[in-house]
Amino acid sequence: MSELGIIEPETFLFEDSFSLESGKSLDGFELIYETYGKLSDKKDNAVLICHALSGNHHAAGLSNENDKRPGWWNELIGPGKAFDTEKYFVVSLNNLGGCHGSTGPSSINPSTNEKFGKEFPLVTVKDWINSQNLLRSYLGIDRWLAVAGGSLGGMQALQWAIDYPDLVEKSIVIAAAPKLSAQNIAFNEVARQAIVNDPDFEKGTHHPKRGLGLARMLGHITYLSEEVMKEKFDRDLKKEKIEYGYDVEFEVESYLRYQADNFSDKFDAHTYLLMTKALDYFDPAKYFDGNLISSLEQTKSNFLIISFSSDWRFSPKRSKEIVNSLVAAKKPVSYINIESFQGHDGFLFPDNRYVNTIKTFLNSDV
Amino acid sequence: MSELGIIEPETFLFEDSFSLESGKSLDGFELIYETYGKLSDKKDNAVLICHALSGNHHAAGLSNENDKRPGWWNELIGPGKAFDTEKYFVVSLNNLGGCHGSTGPSSINPSTNEKFGKEFPLVTVKDWINSQNLLRSYLGIDRWLAVAGGSLGGMQALQWAIDYPDLVEKSIVIAAAPKLSAQNIAFNEVARQAIVNDPDFEKGTHHPKRGLGLARMLGHITYLSEEVMKEKFDRDLKKEKIEYGYDVEFEVESYLRYQADNFSDKFDAHTYLLMTKALDYFDPAKYFDGNLISSLEQTKSNFLIISFSSDWRFSPKRSKEIVNSLVAAKKPVSYINIESFQGHDGFLFPDNRYVNTIKTFLNSDV
Repeated sequence: MSELGIIEPETFLFEDSFSLESGKSLDGFELIYETYGKLSDKKDNAVLICHALSGNHHAAGLSNENDKRPGWWNELIGPGKAFDTEKYFVVSLNNLGGCHGSTGPSSINPSTNEKFGKEFPLVTVKDWINSQNLLRSYLGIDRWLAVAGGSLGGMQALQWAIDYPDLVEKSIVIAAAPKLSAQNIAFNEVARQAIVNDPDFEKGTHHPKRGLGLARMLGHITYLSEEVMKEKFDRDLKKEKIEYGYDVEFEVESYLRYQADNFSDKFDAHTYLLMTKALDYFDPAKYFDGNLISSLEQTKSNFLIISFSSDWRFSPKRSKEIVNSLVAAKKPVSYINIESFQGHDGFLFPDNRYVNTIKTFLNSDV
Repeated sequence: MSELGIIEPETFLFEDSFSLESGKSLDGFELIYETYGKLSDKKDNAVLICHALSGNHHAAGLSNENDKRPGWWNELIGPGKAFDTEKYFVVSLNNLGGCHGSTGPSSINPSTNEKFGKEFPLVTVKDWINSQNLLRSYLGIDRWLAVAGGSLGGMQALQWAIDYPDLVEKSIVIAAAPKLSAQNIAFNEVARQAIVNDPDFEKGTHHPKRGLGLARMLGHITYLSEEVMKEKFDRDLKKEKIEYGYDVEFEVESYLRYQADNFSDKFDAHTYLLMTKALDYFDPAKYFDGNLISSLEQTKSNFLIISFSSDWRFSPKRSKEIVNSLVAAKKPVSYINIESFQGHDGFLFPDNRYVNTIKTFLNSDV
C-alpha cells in the first residue's frame, strides 16, 4: 500500500565522457530515477534521497499494479510524511554502478557488447555526487533544498555538502560515519571474499548466488541490534525439538537463509563488491590531510545528524564524530539520537521523534 | 619460549560404548591430552583446562624442539603463572570431535576404514563433560580442585559444576555466556554456510579450504574489539595508495586473509561445524525448564566468573547473567570484569588483575 500509487521510473542519459576519482572514465552513463511530489515554480523544494548499499531508485510508491511491497523508504516519503510530497519534490535515483537500471556492472559494455562485469570501474561516493549533480542540472534544479540519506546514503549527503556547498541548503545525515572503521572494513572484506571465492564468480559467466547470499547474511546481522534479534528470534526452534544435525534448527538460521536466498536472486554480485568498496574508500577528509574539520569548513548547509541508540554498525559515537567536527568548524548542526531497538535498520522505520525531527528541520527557515 | 619445555602429549583410550546426548553413541574413543606440573600425593591439586572453539590439548609448553609458538594458554599456565605448575597438576585435552588427536570427524571410522567426516555424530558440552570425567577417572583424580576455561571452555566449566557437583571444588568461567544469543547463533550459521556451500565440501573428499577460511575470518572479527582493530590496523593501507581495485588495499584485509589461509590449512571443516553446533546447543537450563537458577541450585563448587570490558562476543552483561543466577541460587561466587581493549580474545592475555584474581581464587580455602 502506498498513498503515492504507481510510480514510473525515468532515465537520465549522459552522453559525454565522465571522469572518475580512480582516474578512469566512463563513455557516458544512464541513471534511473523516480520523483515524488511536484517541483515548485521557484524550483526551491527539491530534496535528493541517496540510497544505501543494497538500495535503489525505488524509494516510495509501487512499481506496478501487482507490487506488494512499496519502495524502501515509503514509510518516510509521501503525503504528510517526513519527506512530505505535498510540500517537496523528492528525487531518488539508482546510483552509478547499481543493478536496478542505472549503468553498472550488469549493463552492456558498448565496446564489447557483453556485460561489463568485473571490467566496470570502481566508483566512489565523490563520483556519485558528481553524477547526481548532472542529474540535478538535467532536472532544472538550481539547488537542493536538502540532500538526505541513511548509512551509505548519509555519507553521500555529507559529501554533497563538502563538494557542492552552494548547491545544498540542508544536509540530513542519518546512521552514518565520517569513514569506516577497521571493523567495518573487515566485515566488508569477508563479504567480498565470500563472493569472489564462489567458483561461479571465478567462472565469470555464472551468478555467484551462494557467495552473494553469504555476504547478505553477514550484512544482515550487522544491520540488526542484538536486542531486536532476541525479540524476533531469541533461541526459538524451527522444528519441535533439537535434532542434532546440520539442517536449520533455530528460527534465526531459517530467517538468514531466506534473506540470503531472496537477495541473491535479485542482486548483482559486482555491484555488491563495488558498493562495499565505495563504503571502504569513503573519507571526505582525505583531500584535507585527514582533517575532517577542515573538510567541513567549506560547507554552507545546515546539518541534521541522526543516529540510533542500538546501531552498532555505525553507532551514535560515529555520528557524534561528525557533529563534533561540524561544531569545531563553526557550522550550524542539530543532532538527535533516536532511542531504538532496531539497530542500524532503525533509519527505515517511522519512529515519531525521528519523523518529526526531519519534518521540523525541512520546514524551518535557515 | 616456555619454562615448561617440551611437552609430550598422551592418549586415553576408552573402549566401551559411549552414549551421546543426541541419542547416538560412539564405539569407544581416544582423547589426546597433556599435563603440566605434578599430581600431589593426596591427588587434591588437579586443575582441568577446557578449550574453546578452535583450541586443542596443547595449552602450554612446546610441542617439539623446533616449535616457535608455545601452547595457546602458555601465558597463564606455568611456574608462578595464573595456573601455577609448581602447585597444581594441570590437565588439558583435545575435546571429543576435535581434529588434533582426539577422536573426531577426521579420525578413521573403524566400521568403514574411511574418515568419519560428516558421519561423525554431533557432540554437546554435556558429552564433553562426560568424556572428560572418564579421563579424570583414568588419571586417578578423585575430584578436580578446579575446572577452568574461556569462551566455550568457560561453558564447559559451568556444565561440570552442574553435572558433577561432587567432583568440582572450584569453577572458573571466563568470557562465557549461559547460552548463545540469536546474534551469536547467526554468526555461527554464516560460518557454517560458508563451509557447507564450498563446492569442495559438497564433494566430500576435498578440504573446503575457502569456506573454512571465510568462517575463520568472520570468527576473528568477533574475537577482537572495534578498539583493538583500530589500534592494530585503523585504515592503514597495505600499498602506498588506494588503487581502486579488488586486491588487498587495507592492512586489516591482509591480516584477515592471512588468518584465513593459515587456519584453513590446519583445521578440519567438520570439527569446525561440530564445535559451532556445540556452542549453539549449549543451554544448561534446558533440563530445568529453561531456569538457569534451578540448574545452578545443585552445584557445590565455588565460582569465579570473569569478563572483559570490550568483549562483544560474550559481553560482561552475559557473565553477569551467570553471576546473578548464582547469587539467586545462593551459591558462592566472585565476579571480576577486567578492563581490556582486546575484546573476546582478552582471556588469552596475562593482564595483572586477571592473573592475580585466578591465583588468589585457586589458592584460597573454600
